[in-house]
Amino acid sequence: MATPRDVPSRDVYMDLEKRFARMYLIRDAATLLEWDASTFMPDGGAQARADQMATLRVIRHELLTDAAMGERLASAEACADLDEWERANLREMRREWIHATAVPAALVEARSQAVSACEMRWRTARRANDFAGLRPLLEEVVRLTREMAAAKSQSLGVSPYDALLDEWEPGGRAADIDRVFGAIESFLPSLVERVLAHQARRPAPDAPRGPFAADRQLELAHRLMRAMGFDFAHGRLDVSAHPFCAGIPEDVRITTRWDESDLENGLFSVIHETGHALYERGLPERWRRQPVGQARGMSTHESQSLLWEMQVARSPELVSWLAPLAREIFGGEGPAWDAEAMLGRVLRVERSLIRVDADEVTYPLHVILRYRLERALIAGDLTIADLPGAFDDGMHELLGVRPPNVCDGALQDIHWPAGMFGYFPTYTLGALTAAQLYAAALEANPSIPASLARGDAKPLTSWLVPNVHALGALPSAPEILVRATGRPLDPEVFRRHLERRYLG
Amino acid sequence: MATPRDVPSRDVYMDLEKRFARMYLIRDAATLLEWDASTFMPDGGAQARADQMATLRVIRHELLTDAAMGERLASAEACADLDEWERANLREMRREWIHATAVPAALVEARSQAVSACEMRWRTARRANDFAGLRPLLEEVVRLTREMAAAKSQSLGVSPYDALLDEWEPGGRAADIDRVFGAIESFLPSLVERVLAHQARRPAPDAPRGPFAADRQLELAHRLMRAMGFDFAHGRLDVSAHPFCAGIPEDVRITTRWDESDLENGLFSVIHETGHALYERGLPERWRRQPVGQARGMSTHESQSLLWEMQVARSPELVSWLAPLAREIFGGEGPAWDAEAMLGRVLRVERSLIRVDADEVTYPLHVILRYRLERALIAGDLTIADLPGAFDDGMHELLGVRPPNVCDGALQDIHWPAGMFGYFPTYTLGALTAAQLYAAALEANPSIPASLARGDAKPLTSWLVPNVHALGALPSAPEILVRATGRPLDPEVFRRHLERRYLG
Repeated sequence: MATPRDVPSRDVYMDLEKRFARMYLIRDAATLLEWDASTFMPDGGAQARADQMATLRVIRHELLTDAAMGERLASAEACADLDEWERANLREMRREWIHATAVPAALVEARSQAVSACEMRWRTARRANDFAGLRPLLEEVVRLTREMAAAKSQSLGVSPYDALLDEWEPGGRAADIDRVFGAIESFLPSLVERVLAHQARRPAPDAPRGPFAADRQLELAHRLMRAMGFDFAHGRLDVSAHPFCAGIPEDVRITTRWDESDLENGLFSVIHETGHALYERGLPERWRRQPVGQARGMSTHESQSLLWEMQVARSPELVSWLAPLAREIFGGEGPAWDAEAMLGRVLRVERSLIRVDADEVTYPLHVILRYRLERALIAGDLTIADLPGAFDDGMHELLGVRPPNVCDGALQDIHWPAGMFGYFPTYTLGALTAAQLYAAALEANPSIPASLARGDAKPLTSWLVPNVHALGALPSAPEILVRATGRPLDPEVFRRHLERRYLG
Repeated sequence: MATPRDVPSRDVYMDLEKRFARMYLIRDAATLLEWDASTFMPDGGAQARADQMATLRVIRHELLTDAAMGERLASAEACADLDEWERANLREMRREWIHATAVPAALVEARSQAVSACEMRWRTARRANDFAGLRPLLEEVVRLTREMAAAKSQSLGVSPYDALLDEWEPGGRAADIDRVFGAIESFLPSLVERVLAHQARRPAPDAPRGPFAADRQLELAHRLMRAMGFDFAHGRLDVSAHPFCAGIPEDVRITTRWDESDLENGLFSVIHETGHALYERGLPERWRRQPVGQARGMSTHESQSLLWEMQVARSPELVSWLAPLAREIFGGEGPAWDAEAMLGRVLRVERSLIRVDADEVTYPLHVILRYRLERALIAGDLTIADLPGAFDDGMHELLGVRPPNVCDGALQDIHWPAGMFGYFPTYTLGALTAAQLYAAALEANPSIPASLARGDAKPLTSWLVPNVHALGALPSAPEILVRATGRPLDPEVFRRHLERRYLG
């Protein structure tokens, strides 16, 4: 390979494509190793698997940060004859490179060690309701994360918190989130009041009696996934402790867990993960192993899972198709198997303590609290010692409930112990994006609900693929939304969705 | 990292250990990808998976052949304070390096392409009984393999055929195989005669009526694997089109296929693969990701699978434990479920056309034929055009049967189309080694058969681990045998085994 100076820049760009393709193939291999670790790997293979994954991670990092990479990027950026996609690809290459090089290796290593130790301790601390034992480890994680944020802040030219956010939500800015979350805070607490009052006036829906055999649940899930357009020649559904979506567009692996006492838990988590899977599968094929061919970021990814899980699967139309199918597969009898009862169950609203169990109405309040707290932690305005109290106060202020103990309070989530700061807001950005995209899809094609009632999702996916999936990381997340819906993220659309569904 | 000249050689050696550990971790990752491709991967993931595996292979190759590797090896070899294991490790490092560097990259690439094309064509050619269509592709594979053999012959200082053999059987020499195979040829054809005559005097054993549900077969296999000492915390059994053993000692993955019309097919293939798995699992832990910590070669590996499949599992003692267990799990009734009937079925001898279906008595004749032919092909003494005729003539000479068509003749095996020359003899070397090792184990501990009759394999594995498994690649295969049995490979032991079992 000639050095960048000897060749025209377009060749340098093409050389970069080759290098990134190799890095993505390594990442894809690592993804499969991780999937296997969560599904089929025997326990005794854990240490060896961790070593394999670390090796692939290090090799990928070495390829990304090799001494000439900065020069290659600059040389390619100076090239005039790149098209829009190539330019965007180059922009994303540089983004990856900045994240990989902004932080001194010693800090990366120290933080990685601190995160591993803290995450491991969190698992026992949560069970034991032991915040004191976790505290020094979490303090260390926050300290090193603040250092990392400062370093990335320099390289990216954004605030430290925005630099962390950028890992999950490229180009995301706290100022934009503040605007959106501020609007939600202004209407949601009182909306929750009204929804609960409205709900209290109706009897609680019947639930069918279990057990619901896992193999029947699997059959139902397969039928539903097929209706959603999941292609089993390019993916699988398996079981793991926590549902996830992994793999690559050519081979998407989703997982769930079956609760034999509940008809909807596993099923709706499958719908959520299938939403992620359809997004991956719809990414632009030409750009498969390039940065611009990847999902746009966590808010867009979450918008795709929530669009299916919340907007579609909790609509009367989809449930009118799903409930009779469930009845048929389980041989169910009685009104608890009616669509109306199922809809009532999956639209239940509650002021609950645990974020992952929350309904779509109260969920944003859980997220807003965490967003506030993590910004304060990164800014240095909140200490870990004060975190549990601040968490409980926030829960009381926003949701009107107070955790009886820290394991149901500040200890409930893995994110901070795992070093993930800047991730939480993407859940709610995703939920709002989903509402806005679905409204635009229905406006573009009003026959979508009727087709869903027949178990036909094609009209919907025919809109989603060109408007979201096939754009990859070419536009920013806000640009995708403006192109698809005609305007930036608008909390009013989400508010109207909730009002129509829960107060109608 | 300092350059080799600046540091004492022991550091160079330790640096080599680090480098090889990384290469083995990459190989281990690739092994899991391959396992998944054969078990759970959806068809649509095939191309992406092939690209991932090729990427890992190339990276591993680049690490092994980097410009300074030869100098590093030489420098470490000059070091005086290495112990026996380190020295052997270095020897094996050099072996890997020679195999990786002996052949010009262009030839490696051309041969890899030719092999892929030939192997793919073979799949259809075999079904279509179409030798003419395969012929030019197989000619190209042989031509390039001869070139490769010539190049490796130079670097290794052995004959071209021995250079190919060395890939599968490190240090193996055709001269030694000739001696052993010559002895077998001198007694086996007439022994087959006598066995068949002896067998004809007794009624064919009853077979229980199926179907034998796959989940029951799996249950039986799990019970048997546990009895053999397979540790499910460090391994799994799954289903694939062709049974194999893959993975790493910490996480061994074996597969089988279930034939619901046959009680023993799947089960005995599980025993075979479990034998491979136990060997992997018993390799020296200190040397896990080093060349010296790997299995010694294919004849030793095959000796471990065949020791269990042929020596142990077809013994009256093991069958006296296995048959009642099978009867219990399937709720079987009648004399076909008796140990005597099962033993009769698994000891059936037959002059068959297909190697993979052959019994242990006739199997070596299938191998000897292939060994003769592939040596002639590599020497240039046999053309591909003449191969089918030579194959059929050899079958008639050695086994007394003549293939009615080429798909049951020269087209039956994948090895040559897949570029595997020098592999076939290891099957029979393994069978002989198994007989000799098992005889030595019984001599060392005469209570082994009685413990097997109780479903307890510990006395046997307690002998196998220190005498074979834990030695890794420290000794050569012949040295392992001499240490464990007191003498070199002796075809007489195999002959006595067959006579005792089939003429007694």
